[in-house]
Amino acid sequence: MITYKEKSQTANLRAIRRLAKEISSAHVLPLAVVHGGGSFGHPLAKRYAIKDGFKKSSQILGFAKTHLAMVTLNRLVVDALIQHEVPAVAVSPSSCIVAKSGRISTVSSEPLKKMLQLAFVPVLYGDAVLDSDLGFTILSGDQLITHLATSLNADHIIVGLDVDGLYSADPKTKPTAKLISHVTLKELKDMRLRIEEAKVTDVTGGMLGKIDELIPAIERGTTVLLVNAAKPGNICKALKGEKVTGTLIEKE
Amino acid sequence: MITYKEKSQTANLRAIRRLAKEISSAHVLPLAVVHGGGSFGHPLAKRYAIKDGFKKSSQILGFAKTHLAMVTLNRLVVDALIQHEVPAVAVSPSSCIVAKSGRISTVSSEPLKKMLQLAFVPVLYGDAVLDSDLGFTILSGDQLITHLATSLNADHIIVGLDVDGLYSADPKTKPTAKLISHVTLKELKDMRLRIEEAKVTDVTGGMLGKIDELIPAIERGTTVLLVNAAKPGNICKALKGEKVTGTLIEKE
Repeated sequence: MITYKEKSQTANLRAIRRLAKEISSAHVLPLAVVHGGGSFGHPLAKRYAIKDGFKKSSQILGFAKTHLAMVTLNRLVVDALIQHEVPAVAVSPSSCIVAKSGRISTVSSEPLKKMLQLAFVPVLYGDAVLDSDLGFTILSGDQLITHLATSLNADHIIVGLDVDGLYSADPKTKPTAKLISHVTLKELKDMRLRIEEAKVTDVTGGMLGKIDELIPAIERGTTVLLVNAAKPGNICKALKGEKVTGTLIEKE
Repeated sequence: MITYKEKSQTANLRAIRRLAKEISSAHVLPLAVVHGGGSFGHPLAKRYAIKDGFKKSSQILGFAKTHLAMVTLNRLVVDALIQHEVPAVAVSPSSCIVAKSGRISTVSSEPLKKMLQLAFVPVLYGDAVLDSDLGFTILSGDQLITHLATSLNADHIIVGLDVDGLYSADPKTKPTAKLISHVTLKELKDMRLRIEEAKVTDVTGGMLGKIDELIPAIERGTTVLLVNAAKPGNICKALKGEKVTGTLIEKE
């Protein structure tokens, strides 16, 4: 969404600026932003097999390149937000999070909590992080979102996608696929098999992985709203709590 | 040194690339790099009085801009190091450090320690950080260096300057000023008054402040070598432990 997936390390600056403007217009606080890697982080992470952990010395430079690519994309996002007067502060996951076998293990959340108290908007991202078992790994934006929502006691998670939300089947191949506007955790479990057919995937797991990762937050009461961020106005409306096409996921 | 001090947010890419090459050629591990703010961080930090802490709401965007400027400079440094095959990883102080009344209070050093174990070269910088008393403040690169040297048990600190080291007087105004090639902590205390006259100052405190900040590390046994990083080859020689013009500061 904020990068051109086909073009290596090419940002969609138009989309970034529009979304920054929407976030600015919504005037919602407290707010934290998490973005993915797109064509910045993903190709490098894949090429150097960062997710699998440290196996050979050539990966070391690969990890460094992957993190640099993510910092580069993050800088563009933060810059756009600041241009729209959002006090965005980059928070680098690899500087404050260590994983264990691919899952978040230790987090230094004090800087983040203090930022939110002062009305800053921390901007995080999926990142290459150190891992006490694997050496290093990839921390997906989705895993990060759930962790933040839980530790910061978030009311809402808004997930910006390039589709309208969760469908009964893959809308790109099945014209009969219907957008599910509301779903509970129980209904979600019943639907799992159908979601697995949807194949809206990406390196970090696609729609199914995305929802799976968010379940711990939903279980403790955070609502999740999936919306199409490619459609102008949606993110602003979603942030303001206005009615918007999408999928609302609630505990019950 | 790595920026043009007179030109706002203008990096000296030639110097950055040369220093990256020198660091690469030295093949020294473990190694952590800390750089200052130059014309990126300092003018913004000053304009918004970030060091003094949170006093009015307009500073919030100023803090965000200051941090963005530092990330921008840091990205250039890390990029140059990676170009020279140094596995440099940006570590963002504001993501893992909280200060208390301007002094480092809590640090999440686990990511950093793990990076050094895997032969990464973490690259940190003076930064705008959160502060539990002041709201926020400026953490100078010098305070950060001493903290890192102490917590990571460093053998050596090499400080790259645009002068040859510590002089008996200000070499820019007094032609009789002599470079002091070796000094102990005790001698340093005796010399304080003369140093105060040297007036090689910057926003974060100048040469005197620099040495003052480094004393805790020297006291626990870390040697400090001040060298002129503007002279090609000096940083490489210093990293390799070869003889180089400068000031060596030792405990005794």
